[in-house]
Amino acid sequence: MANRDTGRRSRNQDATDSSGEGTRSARKRRVIMEAATTAFLRNGYLGTSMDEIAALAGVSKQTVYNHFADKQRLFIDIILATSDQVVGELVQTATSALPKTDDVEDVEEDLVELARQLITAICHPQVLRLRRLVIGETGRFPELGRTYWERGFERGLATLADRLRQLAERGLLRLEDPQLAAHQFAGMILWVPVNRVMFCGEAGSLTPAEVDRYAKAGARAFLSAYGTATTNPSE
Amino acid sequence: MANRDTGRRSRNQDATDSSGEGTRSARKRRVIMEAATTAFLRNGYLGTSMDEIAALAGVSKQTVYNHFADKQRLFIDIILATSDQVVGELVQTATSALPKTDDVEDVEEDLVELARQLITAICHPQVLRLRRLVIGETGRFPELGRTYWERGFERGLATLADRLRQLAERGLLRLEDPQLAAHQFAGMILWVPVNRVMFCGEAGSLTPAEVDRYAKAGARAFLSAYGTATTNPSE
Repeated sequence: MANRDTGRRSRNQDATDSSGEGTRSARKRRVIMEAATTAFLRNGYLGTSMDEIAALAGVSKQTVYNHFADKQRLFIDIILATSDQVVGELVQTATSALPKTDDVEDVEEDLVELARQLITAICHPQVLRLRRLVIGETGRFPELGRTYWERGFERGLATLADRLRQLAERGLLRLEDPQLAAHQFAGMILWVPVNRVMFCGEAGSLTPAEVDRYAKAGARAFLSAYGTATTNPSE
Repeated sequence: MANRDTGRRSRNQDATDSSGEGTRSARKRRVIMEAATTAFLRNGYLGTSMDEIAALAGVSKQTVYNHFADKQRLFIDIILATSDQVVGELVQTATSALPKTDDVEDVEEDLVELARQLITAICHPQVLRLRRLVIGETGRFPELGRTYWERGFERGLATLADRLRQLAERGLLRLEDPQLAAHQFAGMILWVPVNRVMFCGEAGSLTPAEVDRYAKAGARAFLSAYGTATTNPSE
């Protein structure tokens, strides 16, 4: 969140950013955003008031309004910033979990590890709360859902498709449509785990053994469909 | 919804159910539930007041309270009744779309048809609004999400697993774990379509060609993993 925040300018920030005044303003803005993130993720849009956010941030309500025109604007800024952060981490997971060129010995084990990391990352309590909030408020703020979809969901899938395409170029997978294969891989490993936490909350979190089960079965089924002669799992 | 409603008794209903009084009371209760369903699905829990529900139902607020102790109780009743109805229809889809014993000629085409019907049913605007509402309000009403999960999601998956097990018993699939295979099949065909409508709303609805694409690719990949020598798709 802070990353995105530093790239923007509040109406109190001007060319004096490097001065004490600018820094204090930026710091105050960050504190307000953190308080608002906590409040919105806990109580939703309608369940959160600007008074509560001010109290939680330890500033006056006027200070909140100096930085954010209204609750709606603050909410949208919060959600987009949190989404960028969360999705950035998911993409980082997808990028780092697949091995670099030439060191793939066992593509099945690599896919299992990727699956494990994706399940764990997307079922993280913070991601869960964010997804729930965006989904619940998309009727009120259609642009929010659409932006989350484009910057988050589609970006994650595109990264995954890109990694699968690279494996295919190295002769380890046989894919005509890496994008569709990425959708299927993600779906096999994530459909049940993610829905379980979406509906049951943290109580629905998977045990490590369950994560392992979905990851292994997903990688195996995926290779049955898209593996090569050498990477297809043995019967 | 009406099905579940008729199985219950409001505090105004007694042994005179068959009299004009009982019928009028049951009818009024139904009208209130319909109005509340419309209001909650459109504006969420916090965004809906008992005043609005009374106005929409064309009754006094007191009449609403005669039938439902409070907004929370009404909300929970509405969501559970709507869930039962919606999931009943989804289960019906899964049950009827797979062929009965002995008339399977082409299991791939049958799975494609099942996939098509499941995608279409679960992306229906009413299901979409219900899922969004339940997910958005699960933080406030944990029991609601858990009940939806158990009565809805898990029940649907169990029905699907049962149908896949039957196909395996007839030698058309090779499955060790029908439940896990059902999770994977559902995930491959539903992950992207359902998330797209969850985040983008009806604007994210799939075209018939897109439904077809996910259904065909899903059935094909599924049979690569779980088909028998005769049902495995040709290379």
